Amino acid sequence: MGLVVQKYGGSSVADAASVKRVAARIVETKRAGHDVVVIVSAMGDTTDDLIALAEQVSPNPAARELDMLLTAGERISMAVLAMAIHDLGIEARSYTGSQAGLITDSAHGRARIIDVTPGRIQAAIADGAVPIVAGFQGVAQDTKDITTLGRGGSDTTAVALAAALGADVCEIYTDVDGIFTADPRIAPKARQVPYITYEEMLELAANGAKVLHLRCVEYARRFDLPIHVRSSFSSKTGTFVVSDISRAQGDAVEQPIIAGVAHDMGDAKITVVGVPDKPGMAAGIFRAVADAEVNLDMIVQNVSAAATGRTDVTFTCPQADGQKALAALEKVKHEIEFEDLRYDDDIAKVSLVGAGMRSHPGVSATFFRALSDAGVNVEMISTSEIRISVVTRTESAATAVQAVHTAFGLDADGEAVIYGGTGR
Amino acid sequence: MGLVVQKYGGSSVADAASVKRVAARIVETKRAGHDVVVIVSAMGDTTDDLIALAEQVSPNPAARELDMLLTAGERISMAVLAMAIHDLGIEARSYTGSQAGLITDSAHGRARIIDVTPGRIQAAIADGAVPIVAGFQGVAQDTKDITTLGRGGSDTTAVALAAALGADVCEIYTDVDGIFTADPRIAPKARQVPYITYEEMLELAANGAKVLHLRCVEYARRFDLPIHVRSSFSSKTGTFVVSDISRAQGDAVEQPIIAGVAHDMGDAKITVVGVPDKPGMAAGIFRAVADAEVNLDMIVQNVSAAATGRTDVTFTCPQADGQKALAALEKVKHEIEFEDLRYDDDIAKVSLVGAGMRSHPGVSATFFRALSDAGVNVEMISTSEIRISVVTRTESAATAVQAVHTAFGLDADGEAVIYGGTGR
Repeated sequence: MGLVVQKYGGSSVADAASVKRVAARIVETKRAGHDVVVIVSAMGDTTDDLIALAEQVSPNPAARELDMLLTAGERISMAVLAMAIHDLGIEARSYTGSQAGLITDSAHGRARIIDVTPGRIQAAIADGAVPIVAGFQGVAQDTKDITTLGRGGSDTTAVALAAALGADVCEIYTDVDGIFTADPRIAPKARQVPYITYEEMLELAANGAKVLHLRCVEYARRFDLPIHVRSSFSSKTGTFVVSDISRAQGDAVEQPIIAGVAHDMGDAKITVVGVPDKPGMAAGIFRAVADAEVNLDMIVQNVSAAATGRTDVTFTCPQADGQKALAALEKVKHEIEFEDLRYDDDIAKVSLVGAGMRSHPGVSATFFRALSDAGVNVEMISTSEIRISVVTRTESAATAVQAVHTAFGLDADGEAVIYGGTGR
Repeated sequence: MGLVVQKYGGSSVADAASVKRVAARIVETKRAGHDVVVIVSAMGDTTDDLIALAEQVSPNPAARELDMLLTAGERISMAVLAMAIHDLGIEARSYTGSQAGLITDSAHGRARIIDVTPGRIQAAIADGAVPIVAGFQGVAQDTKDITTLGRGGSDTTAVALAAALGADVCEIYTDVDGIFTADPRIAPKARQVPYITYEEMLELAANGAKVLHLRCVEYARRFDLPIHVRSSFSSKTGTFVVSDISRAQGDAVEQPIIAGVAHDMGDAKITVVGVPDKPGMAAGIFRAVADAEVNLDMIVQNVSAAATGRTDVTFTCPQADGQKALAALEKVKHEIEFEDLRYDDDIAKVSLVGAGMRSHPGVSATFFRALSDAGVNVEMISTSEIRISVVTRTESAATAVQAVHTAFGLDADGEAVIYGGTGR
């Protein structure tokens, strides 16, 4: 008996049959004696369809209006889900983000939650009803305009509401069974982990794992709210994301060294060739790129070649920002006096993540030995206390992930089950 | 220079191209120096599609949730219309019914407007922006739940908002050029009238004319707000619905005798056969039908046949309510002791409407002479001060409308132009 917040992604409510299946699961939880609050994304491809409509009407849709448009998607899914629950004999009431008290700033398309005032949700729970809340949306505190939270927004809605309501757990339903030691699509021997820490999950999410978004994990960590990532297609226990695995497990088992191997094919590598090796030149490069609102990831500066007095600076950024970054650098070419720009998006980033590695000095050695034995060429390296990342060719990504996965003893006995699609 | 409220139906914004065309028209009005407030229905078949989705999920969708679902339709159309106006260099902001201050009772699916508090709309006008308001929807005063206004709801939203804002005129854009003396689809010589009174329009709407809904005309009459019914496909002046035609025209032209001829194929005729001719029996019949929430229209009671002491009672009601009425009557059969029930939906109602007829005693004679000369058999008759209606066979409807239209000198020289489809 407790308060459970459940979030269902778009693939879990893609059509009428899926909506009914999800309704049955919600009613089951309710009948088991729990209070349930549900957050739902737009059905299937609805959001993409609405974006396509906007693009037919306008080459550059007004941000306020695009948010108004997109929020129609969750309005549809939450209403039909509430209907389906009703038909199973449990009262359900749908609420928009605004009605549920999701108060945001006014940055349309990427609004941040600044307050949660869930009075109507609490009243619905007190009435014994199941509140169904639209994910991904809120209302701006100052303008009272409707906002959307951007990518991963529904997960963030779920965690924020769960925190504000003091829920016992936030269940994120998706189309995979939980968090895996690697992406089963490229590492067939990947296996599901029962627990993972917030910081590991953050590193995995930031380095290409798609199951949970960074913001939702950050939010959960801030409130120490357990997230249970699980499949809406089965009743199996999934993966719990928690602050302390030993505490969550209720025993003294030591933290595993490695949580998993992530990969990301979405980055590009830009090399600024022949930068004069004098103070301020690197700063000028990164200032230009930052002013263009490009997020840098890894950065490498080669040792200066003594003969020329020049050096190369290489960084990675999302492929989507590549052209923006190049344009920004072209503008400062004469100021910084570099020689050339090189752009390469045929790269992959492979990352090993594990909170236990901070106390195990041999991890790097095992990691690079595995890559080398598999014939993977490493082009860039970056590390944090609980992560080692390398950049390699796209074609080497699967080999690299599998080699590292095996080297750290992560391989499962059988092969992982893969479901199709991804949720929002 | 004034304040113009414009309402566009679903057929006027059926796709991206139509949305852009409507946007251009709005911007034209704005650039001509007027303040403009726009009310928009859901695009094309959106509402029907949403209803179909609800029916896939639930055999009997919860009313609160069905309203939440259907309001997604206007949310989509208003957002894309605002985007299209933006692209033409005019600021536009979309508002839900709730945001626009459309306060209703909580009767989901058929809510009535009980207050209009258009503070945000006035602020937008003051900012020089064009507010785009979702038709057909509001928010319940007590529960704060989202409501819909039922059939013709967007017209009612437009008139209510126009009245609350003190607009100079409410323009209802549709797919015909205005109000015609008859439906051009069955009376090819029908012609558009430049002016019509509220009471004539009410009689026409109540008797089958589809262009404006009863509630919207009632609302406009209450606030003496001129409605301009016109086509969104041309820039021609349409028909003004006003309280006093002479005053509206600004001269002393006398009111025309006849406004037009309406027809309605949507009714059914029910005859209660062999009702004992004693006090209270008719009352028992109408109580039973009223308790079943069936709206009666015409009622005829034959003279009692002296030999039997029994009489027949005949009434008409919407075909959609026919089975409900029959079931209600079957239940009281033994109490009222009637002999039989007869149901007939192969009927048409033809009505002649004109505020001028109240001072022209020859109107009835001309009307029945025309029908008789055309060989139209009259089965039932009902009249008001400004209307005469008859029931005839469906197959005679067109002949009857044309004959009456000609007899009262309403025929145009050419034939009317007909556009396809109808708006909501």
